[in-house]
Amino acid sequence: MQLQGIGIGQGIALGPVARMAGPLPEPVDRPSHLDAEREGERARASLSVVAEELNRRGAQAGGAAQDILEAQAMMAEDPTLTDDITTRLATGKTAERAVFEAFASFRDLLAGMGGYMGERAADLDDVAQRVIAHLLKVPAPGLPDPGHPYVLVARDLAPADTAMLDLDQVLALVTTDGGPTSHTAILARDKAIVAVVGAADAASLGDGDAVIVDAENGVVVAAPSEAELAEARARVEERKTRAAAPLTPGQLADGTLVPLLANLGSADGAPAALEAGAEGVGLFRTEFLFLDAQSAPTVRDQQAQYTRLLQAFSGKKVVVRVLDAGADKPLAFLNDADEENPALGLRGIRALRSNETILREQLTALAAADAATDADLWVMAPMVANAEEARYFTDLAHELGIRMAGVMVEVPSAALLADRVLAATGFASIGTNDLTQYTMAADRLLGSVSRFQSPWHPAVLSLVGSVGAAGRDLGKPVGICGEAAADPLLAVVLVGLGATTLSMSPSALADVRASLARFTLDDAHAIAEAALAADGAAEAQAAAKSVAAGLTAVVASAT
Amino acid sequence: MQLQGIGIGQGIALGPVARMAGPLPEPVDRPSHLDAEREGERARASLSVVAEELNRRGAQAGGAAQDILEAQAMMAEDPTLTDDITTRLATGKTAERAVFEAFASFRDLLAGMGGYMGERAADLDDVAQRVIAHLLKVPAPGLPDPGHPYVLVARDLAPADTAMLDLDQVLALVTTDGGPTSHTAILARDKAIVAVVGAADAASLGDGDAVIVDAENGVVVAAPSEAELAEARARVEERKTRAAAPLTPGQLADGTLVPLLANLGSADGAPAALEAGAEGVGLFRTEFLFLDAQSAPTVRDQQAQYTRLLQAFSGKKVVVRVLDAGADKPLAFLNDADEENPALGLRGIRALRSNETILREQLTALAAADAATDADLWVMAPMVANAEEARYFTDLAHELGIRMAGVMVEVPSAALLADRVLAATGFASIGTNDLTQYTMAADRLLGSVSRFQSPWHPAVLSLVGSVGAAGRDLGKPVGICGEAAADPLLAVVLVGLGATTLSMSPSALADVRASLARFTLDDAHAIAEAALAADGAAEAQAAAKSVAAGLTAVVASAT
Repeated sequence: MQLQGIGIGQGIALGPVARMAGPLPEPVDRPSHLDAEREGERARASLSVVAEELNRRGAQAGGAAQDILEAQAMMAEDPTLTDDITTRLATGKTAERAVFEAFASFRDLLAGMGGYMGERAADLDDVAQRVIAHLLKVPAPGLPDPGHPYVLVARDLAPADTAMLDLDQVLALVTTDGGPTSHTAILARDKAIVAVVGAADAASLGDGDAVIVDAENGVVVAAPSEAELAEARARVEERKTRAAAPLTPGQLADGTLVPLLANLGSADGAPAALEAGAEGVGLFRTEFLFLDAQSAPTVRDQQAQYTRLLQAFSGKKVVVRVLDAGADKPLAFLNDADEENPALGLRGIRALRSNETILREQLTALAAADAATDADLWVMAPMVANAEEARYFTDLAHELGIRMAGVMVEVPSAALLADRVLAATGFASIGTNDLTQYTMAADRLLGSVSRFQSPWHPAVLSLVGSVGAAGRDLGKPVGICGEAAADPLLAVVLVGLGATTLSMSPSALADVRASLARFTLDDAHAIAEAALAADGAAEAQAAAKSVAAGLTAVVASAT
Repeated sequence: MQLQGIGIGQGIALGPVARMAGPLPEPVDRPSHLDAEREGERARASLSVVAEELNRRGAQAGGAAQDILEAQAMMAEDPTLTDDITTRLATGKTAERAVFEAFASFRDLLAGMGGYMGERAADLDDVAQRVIAHLLKVPAPGLPDPGHPYVLVARDLAPADTAMLDLDQVLALVTTDGGPTSHTAILARDKAIVAVVGAADAASLGDGDAVIVDAENGVVVAAPSEAELAEARARVEERKTRAAAPLTPGQLADGTLVPLLANLGSADGAPAALEAGAEGVGLFRTEFLFLDAQSAPTVRDQQAQYTRLLQAFSGKKVVVRVLDAGADKPLAFLNDADEENPALGLRGIRALRSNETILREQLTALAAADAATDADLWVMAPMVANAEEARYFTDLAHELGIRMAGVMVEVPSAALLADRVLAATGFASIGTNDLTQYTMAADRLLGSVSRFQSPWHPAVLSLVGSVGAAGRDLGKPVGICGEAAADPLLAVVLVGLGATTLSMSPSALADVRASLARFTLDDAHAIAEAALAADGAAEAQAAAKSVAAGLTAVVASAT
């Protein structure tokens, strides 16, 4: 049986299912066999273990997840709650029941205070479940640990879950919710994990069920036949062979060069990127330097990190994006936590401009690292909406010693006015994830609108084409650094629309390299035209596939 | 001295300032002159008055504001807090101090529980301030009541404030925060109140200061000279004259008809709209039928309301928008309160489609009201993103007896693919507020990004032009129902870009009618071209002004 979802990447994997554990039943209200003192010790021990565990997970996760987890840890050790538990134990209840009742009572108090506080009650429930699970010595709701490699099936993974995931044990990820830009999908691309997201019917899978997770076709095969298993095993082998192919530069069949670059979140990823044949870095995210900090890191600290990165890519192009704070990655010292719609708020270059010191320091550190190394450093600003912002950033970057400054195109207005934006700066790099989010007005992290989140949508492609045309007219480079570039056929479309470089997770490089080599630039134009003329995303993808199949059939018959 | 801001509408007003009252000082910790019992009575009386007042304001406000206000009322009567106050009074404190300390202590408890709960602490502070103000017999922080007409100066008005505003006393509104689409701005347009929003320097104005609020030029004149006062009074008279001009149909100087329609939120506004010369309704919002309800209203109830509306516009066009729930107006029975970015969530047609019964009932009620009256009913769907959604809505509306079905264009993708969207439906109506929000990726209600919220931005204009061109090619009407249509010069630009009707607050009709009459369709094209070619919003407005001034100078010299 095939369960439909959205595949992330091109991989395929086989294995047994392990599900995220569901909620525990309510502890029965029966007299304890132990005395109140002994039950009290049990309760305090479990509360303390859970608090420690939450704090530890928080420290591991960092960022916003850390705040949430530490707040939960404080709940587990709240003296009012502990007193309440002790009072209930004195009446002869079990620790499980006393914990359940005490948390439930505090929960009701909060819920009764109205809409706002009521929403926080869920956090208390979560802590109570963890404590009761520890008392019962059963798995806490959350990640499974079956003791062997498994296909993780979950509703969706929160950042706190992904921080805890033991990647050596995870064969593949399957979620019932979440779109192609959910945290699960981002993790899957980052770590090259086979994944199918938004597969609603996967809710019916049970622990231990054998499944095939086929990301290329966006399906999960439940109860696969021997033939299906054999085909899947063959495809696993085939991908291993392709991954082992020689690391040639990215180019089309007619010799047109399309440099293939890597998206990186820290310098640690450099060796793997180079090993996968990255010709440089197309998007280096600098958030990691800021996320754990209470304030911005010093110029000296930043310079050391950038120098390390540039040294790893000696002689190659490295495109660094200055701090993109806000939306799903707010920073306490830079962002306003009270925005109703953070994705439409003071983020990216807007936030930096209102805290210009942070931007100046970052550019200064980058220029110093550039001077000390021989990589080809380009620097770009996130969330640029218009020519005025492009000019502001470019002028400031040049003033501080950056030689090549450019902008990310992820706001529709910047794409619509690409001619004016590119005239004001050195290059453009299109962030297809955010561009899709704004063009379709659909939150990239929200499962209920995931059907809108395809970069194949002709509206998104037309904006890419508008930037591509402006780049051609003005002789300025136009890169793609959203995950659209990691889709082998969409990569060809993007080149047909005017992209001059493609940047992606290193794990996608081999597939995209192979795909580009199959088509000429004229082919790419023809495939792009077919996609642009379609009604919607699925139709665009189908039209591109159909034209591409015709073209490769011609190539095959001519040779 | 001129304080710069963003003017809403074209009005001008003069009067004395009254500010929203600021926070109270901390009550001094001194022994009470009264006994604890007497202080207890005082405290309980004030708590009870404040709770009643909050409940009353909630009932008046309705919607989300009601939830917040009622939750606050519950805080004021929380037994734990009352007990805590009594305990503190027993030590000889004053009621003011005991209330202050008890709320502060509960506040700290919540704040200590971490990020989430800490944010709720502000609600407790607000309640405490109200109770202490009542005890001290001083004005509570909030709306002033100086006993004479006044210019209200505030940071920004919350929905709860606007619900309480005595419009007979308010000469004008001035806010230091908030953009052209803030609640204050929406209120100002709806009620035709003179307003300047986002005037940061207005924070320096004091109670009783005489000011001129000049919305047309977006300035507040502090300490005006006699000459300035005289000019302002002359302009007040001039606008009165223009408002009294004959109510001709909307048309350009060359006779091209551009029907001028009204935006309405309930049938109650019909007489005022007709009196202002509205040739029909271009946007009838149906949210009011749903906002106070725990569930959707019945078909019969809806039919009665729609019939009342259509009867008021007998023989005229009435465009009704089906329920647009979500974003800033969520409905408990339809929307998910946990969306991170509700403006990018399951709203508009997306929410209706996942609750199709509500949509079917609304369309059924509309069709029945249409059959029983002789207005020309058109029905449109909000937040349509692509041709597939346009087709879905149009087919369903026809199936249920609606003769003319169309779509709102407010998502950039719908404008980019306007040819395909319009081919699938009967007409388009462009909602410029949301279209600007998404195109610029800037929350329309967020002050910190208000500089991006201008419908004059050439990126927004180019999308309007794309819809206009598709409408012309396919022979389908393209209306404008965002507030852009209420700007007299921008209205000319929109007609030049292909808009066939304009819909606005009735208070704006006279100014727009006068402006259209000054230009031919060729003029409108020329003015639109100049705006489209500009770099940014301010440049587009300046270019349009300059071309328009040249054209009217030619007209003046030729006559």
